[in-house]
Amino acid sequence: MSAPVLFSLSKDDPAGPALGKLIGADRGEIEVRRFPDGETYLRYGTEVKGRSVILFCTLDRPDEKILPLLFAAATARELGAMQVGLVAPYLAYMRQDRRFHDGEAVTSARFAKILSEQVDWLVTVDPHLHRRGSLGEIYGIPAVAVHAAPLISKWIARMVSKPLLIGPDQESEQWVASVAQAISAPHVILEKVRRGDREVEVSLPAIERWRDRTPVLVDDIVSTARTMIETVRHLKRVGLSQPVCIAVHGVFAGEAYRELLAAGAARVVSTNTIPHESNEIDVAPLLAEGVRTVTKPGLPA
Amino acid sequence: MSAPVLFSLSKDDPAGPALGKLIGADRGEIEVRRFPDGETYLRYGTEVKGRSVILFCTLDRPDEKILPLLFAAATARELGAMQVGLVAPYLAYMRQDRRFHDGEAVTSARFAKILSEQVDWLVTVDPHLHRRGSLGEIYGIPAVAVHAAPLISKWIARMVSKPLLIGPDQESEQWVASVAQAISAPHVILEKVRRGDREVEVSLPAIERWRDRTPVLVDDIVSTARTMIETVRHLKRVGLSQPVCIAVHGVFAGEAYRELLAAGAARVVSTNTIPHESNEIDVAPLLAEGVRTVTKPGLPA
Repeated sequence: MSAPVLFSLSKDDPAGPALGKLIGADRGEIEVRRFPDGETYLRYGTEVKGRSVILFCTLDRPDEKILPLLFAAATARELGAMQVGLVAPYLAYMRQDRRFHDGEAVTSARFAKILSEQVDWLVTVDPHLHRRGSLGEIYGIPAVAVHAAPLISKWIARMVSKPLLIGPDQESEQWVASVAQAISAPHVILEKVRRGDREVEVSLPAIERWRDRTPVLVDDIVSTARTMIETVRHLKRVGLSQPVCIAVHGVFAGEAYRELLAAGAARVVSTNTIPHESNEIDVAPLLAEGVRTVTKPGLPA
Repeated sequence: MSAPVLFSLSKDDPAGPALGKLIGADRGEIEVRRFPDGETYLRYGTEVKGRSVILFCTLDRPDEKILPLLFAAATARELGAMQVGLVAPYLAYMRQDRRFHDGEAVTSARFAKILSEQVDWLVTVDPHLHRRGSLGEIYGIPAVAVHAAPLISKWIARMVSKPLLIGPDQESEQWVASVAQAISAPHVILEKVRRGDREVEVSLPAIERWRDRTPVLVDDIVSTARTMIETVRHLKRVGLSQPVCIAVHGVFAGEAYRELLAAGAARVVSTNTIPHESNEIDVAPLLAEGVRTVTKPGLPA
């Protein structure tokens, strides 16, 4: 059987080629460009017939990326690919997983359905699973989520002395606790009240006793960074040292990254699930592990 | 049976409400917005259960519009809509209707398939049917194309004295001839050589004999406007008067509109299939006729 062939739709994203090398995939050539009128042109430059195709496409800004991805998947199939898998280090549309108000689109389920109809399997990093236990409850295809927590623990152990981990909410407690435990650091959880998409208020109970520690704020997705910015300010007010901020997925909408630095973060760090200047932690080895798991014969759907 | 309900996804597009009035549809409320991270939020504010839903969404910039449209269609169905139709005054992805080179995505067929799976019928204005005879060859649902030619003829008859119609290529000859014939005006067809997406060379055989006429350039889609700009310059060189430029679909990529005016067009006019300051010709009555045709009981698929 020939080696799989990996096509990177996330142009200029070094994680694609890095993953390809780790799993022994050939690097496929694909041309994806926009016509002046906004339509996509897509062309495979490498033969896919009879081969196992891996599409690499991280899904921040999903609305503008979905058509090129669907075109790529369908075309690979038309051209005779044996199977078409998707590695999306960041997976979008994980929040709206039910109708919170009458008439709302359940975009999470719908987005999953659209992808599931076009690819045979999916690998991603730490999807934002709110009320769901696993990706398999949403995606109708073999789907593997790999976890960045061990890499984050290692990075903190190497780079931060006497860390105090701070998690953004109750939902994240288990995750933050495991990152902290792996490096025998203490952790606390924010009390937070969200007011709309951009406004948030935070407080940290009895934080003063940790004055000798370096605060390390961790979150799975940092988008507007409102929570982190508020927390950085709160820590300053109560007299703790400048915190390190770590995101698994650094979405950083608009000016969020600059604002977070300006608010007083000592450092802002992310994994490379979304290419960004803050990337410090490489998830390619995790993705490779995910691809090996999902393509292992006999994996249950 | 209750009246159909029309939801406009093309916000601020006056053609949606105008169409609604003409066909006696109720105006539905729908909220469509982007989260800061680029994901779409969508919510129906008007009950759709048991009703005939019409989605109004013109499809210029299709890549960023497709997910909101698919979410709207699927959600209407989940909420119990009896049927979901789509009025897309401009229909994208009509060009790449076969593999011109190995490995290319046939985006025309794929886009049609994606839409056909989510809506029950489609109405559009003058789709760019290259080598295809009808929309039905591409779309697997009842699809009606209405034609702007009579409206364009009327506009020219009212606004331009002694017009000479100029069509961009052999493909358009039949269409241009019918516009010209309706107002007893002469017409000529450009000889044109396209060099890439943006470059084009034109010539007009024996154009000098039409010096007493007002040239009227007509095309179905004006995107980069390269052909029109070259033609305007050519007409100037051979001493004809400043032409009027008419597009059915004024896509006007980037600075195309300003450039066309700067090149010497006396006036640039379009129908309102895509909202633009050049809109002068209202297609709402055509769309109404299309909706009546497509929703007539017994229409063959």
